Amino acid sequence: MEGYRRLYAELGMDIEKHEELMKALGSMYQELFLSRKNRPRSMDYFDRLMGEIHGKRIEELMELKSSGKPLVGTFCIFVPEELVVAAGGACYGLCGGAQFSIPDAETHLPRNICPLIKSAYGFKLQRTCPYTQISDIIYGETTCEAKKKTWELLSRLHRVHVMHIPHRKGERELSIWKEEIKAFKKEVEKLCRCEITFENLKEGIEIVNAKRSAMKRLSRLRCGNGVIPISGLDALLVNQISFYDEPVRYARMVNRLCEELKERIEQGFSVYPEGAPRILVSGTPMAPPNWKIHHIAESCNAAIVAEEACIGERYFRNNVSTEHAESTEELIDALLERYSKIDCACFTPNHERVQNILALCEQKEIDGVIYYTLSFCHTYNIEAKKVMDALKEKGIPAIKIETDYSLQDVEQIRTRIEAFVESLA
Amino acid sequence: MEGYRRLYAELGMDIEKHEELMKALGSMYQELFLSRKNRPRSMDYFDRLMGEIHGKRIEELMELKSSGKPLVGTFCIFVPEELVVAAGGACYGLCGGAQFSIPDAETHLPRNICPLIKSAYGFKLQRTCPYTQISDIIYGETTCEAKKKTWELLSRLHRVHVMHIPHRKGERELSIWKEEIKAFKKEVEKLCRCEITFENLKEGIEIVNAKRSAMKRLSRLRCGNGVIPISGLDALLVNQISFYDEPVRYARMVNRLCEELKERIEQGFSVYPEGAPRILVSGTPMAPPNWKIHHIAESCNAAIVAEEACIGERYFRNNVSTEHAESTEELIDALLERYSKIDCACFTPNHERVQNILALCEQKEIDGVIYYTLSFCHTYNIEAKKVMDALKEKGIPAIKIETDYSLQDVEQIRTRIEAFVESLA
Repeated sequence: MEGYRRLYAELGMDIEKHEELMKALGSMYQELFLSRKNRPRSMDYFDRLMGEIHGKRIEELMELKSSGKPLVGTFCIFVPEELVVAAGGACYGLCGGAQFSIPDAETHLPRNICPLIKSAYGFKLQRTCPYTQISDIIYGETTCEAKKKTWELLSRLHRVHVMHIPHRKGERELSIWKEEIKAFKKEVEKLCRCEITFENLKEGIEIVNAKRSAMKRLSRLRCGNGVIPISGLDALLVNQISFYDEPVRYARMVNRLCEELKERIEQGFSVYPEGAPRILVSGTPMAPPNWKIHHIAESCNAAIVAEEACIGERYFRNNVSTEHAESTEELIDALLERYSKIDCACFTPNHERVQNILALCEQKEIDGVIYYTLSFCHTYNIEAKKVMDALKEKGIPAIKIETDYSLQDVEQIRTRIEAFVESLA
Repeated sequence: MEGYRRLYAELGMDIEKHEELMKALGSMYQELFLSRKNRPRSMDYFDRLMGEIHGKRIEELMELKSSGKPLVGTFCIFVPEELVVAAGGACYGLCGGAQFSIPDAETHLPRNICPLIKSAYGFKLQRTCPYTQISDIIYGETTCEAKKKTWELLSRLHRVHVMHIPHRKGERELSIWKEEIKAFKKEVEKLCRCEITFENLKEGIEIVNAKRSAMKRLSRLRCGNGVIPISGLDALLVNQISFYDEPVRYARMVNRLCEELKERIEQGFSVYPEGAPRILVSGTPMAPPNWKIHHIAESCNAAIVAEEACIGERYFRNNVSTEHAESTEELIDALLERYSKIDCACFTPNHERVQNILALCEQKEIDGVIYYTLSFCHTYNIEAKKVMDALKEKGIPAIKIETDYSLQDVEQIRTRIEAFVESLA
């Protein structure tokens, strides 16, 4: 990262602290990814991207910024990135997956809130996340109360807007939601001093649709004919990168990976020993470098074949239908239709989620579910009861794991997952 | 409580378990209240009421129920009780302040959510709260996500409706809120098979206004001319009882107490030694028998003179203005106007709260603030940062205490409060 010192200085970053972070991440990545065998060769692109996640990719964003394009940092899949893509800008997730920044965050925030929020807030305090630093605006939302209240503090450090996502999807709430999407559109237009038109919005939607379709294709190819051609860790990584990469290139690279996986399936080449149980991980998002559960499960020979999470199925399940839209207004309706289908635990009631999980289990012939929640994520943590009850009723074994970003409980979790995997044999 | 066994059986209660609970509460009440000296003699009413809180008061409710009046249990000051009073029914808080029911709740709910919610849910599981058992309907709301998601589980055990309170107070959100009040009105009308008219609603509003006015009067009389005529614990108790008692009688009894306090002030009779620091407790609600912080502070000779909480100022700060209302519709507008003034940390932004706290500090000549949050209450816990920063700026000393219903941390909290009180001298 030596070569980017000038860029980092320009972004007001704490360069020494950032180097410390990158060093730790580098050796972790080496151990978890680069040193593993049987990885698809198309993973080379994603490895390179990760190697340059705070380097080349930031340079690309800086170029966009210099040409007046909007850069929008987010924490949630409810912010309609299509509008930013329409304006030629970039919409991306902000750093929030590392323990590294949490002790700093805890000087302002309670210790007992979700690690993702603490991590993200800490990165801003530390000035060690170039994505945060480069953002014209951070778009928060009201999907969880710890985030909702943290935006108030974050807005003292960075420009923040909040998108109001309601508690339920009634007609009246949807009409407010639509106004929120329009407000976001206006905000983006203000940033780029340009107009989001029917044409460029449609194009933006098509670009993001293509990205999600590629991810959905990957999801389908994670298991086929009894063959599992890619590890859970690698697939998770590809899903995670969707929040950082340029979407057209990303979709191309995911499709390239898919071609290779198709070949592997045809050749019967599996990365797991025969009979490895097929696991669904269901619950809260895993921002990189949060690879904890997948890494542990992998070491127990459990084949994670899907993530029912915001980084995973919840993100790419539905596309925006532009078929019948003939005006910008109708495209916005189409956005609303797609975004309001998201089965986040923030809604009450949220019956869809249980149905979606059961359907996924059937589709992927799941042997067992790891219900995963980040510590102190009340909504997913409480909704677990309904999900676990529904799985039990269907006879699908499940285990609930609640954890944060620290490594203290790794061995304890390994013991539990090991026992769970054995019980599935 | 022996005499109420038939009533409890009729309510489907676990009578043995309930007796266990009442025994524990009885000795606690003896220690914290009855054994203390210098209490106003008008506290006799409130002591009697507490002694019969699961007895005579439940009998009264049962009589109402038998005559077809609606009984609505709630957990939050956002549910407009005026509408229930208008229909001749009763609206009251449900048990949620005791550790007693928490271990049971934790068989369904995560351990790391707010003790109030766990306690309340546990009481339903245990069938040991007669208020819950007798309720025609439990009215939940969406003010915090742990509650929001717990209603989904609670609704498998009892009839539950949820009032949707938005994240902010924009015009569009207020219009939905109004619909929620109207839906509540309809629900109450359905329960009592009666009509809520302009006349009875106005009367209901006046009854609740009078109750809140009496409480406000009490609040003013908690300190006057340097005299503090009532302990923080007793005043808290009176505030807590407002959620259980019949409102007309309650207001009369609070006013009776106020007369006595006025006399005490005139006579210069203080229940604290001279120079005891005047403390504001600010934060989350304290449902009985949660007397933890007041009890500890009292033992440190700190004079708690106000609670900036839902059980406290937040509840009685504003009345419903019926002056210009000429129709039921306009009364509902007046309800909305009053309820939407509540400065709950569930809103974002929530600038009013900081302003209200500073004003209260000035009004009551506060020497120090105890910022109190129930464990895992994200909204109040995060908002603490803004409040503490604002107090610091004004030079008002403050300490933050986060705790639950267990007694394990009592000595630790006492040490902290002792040191805090000493620092104020």
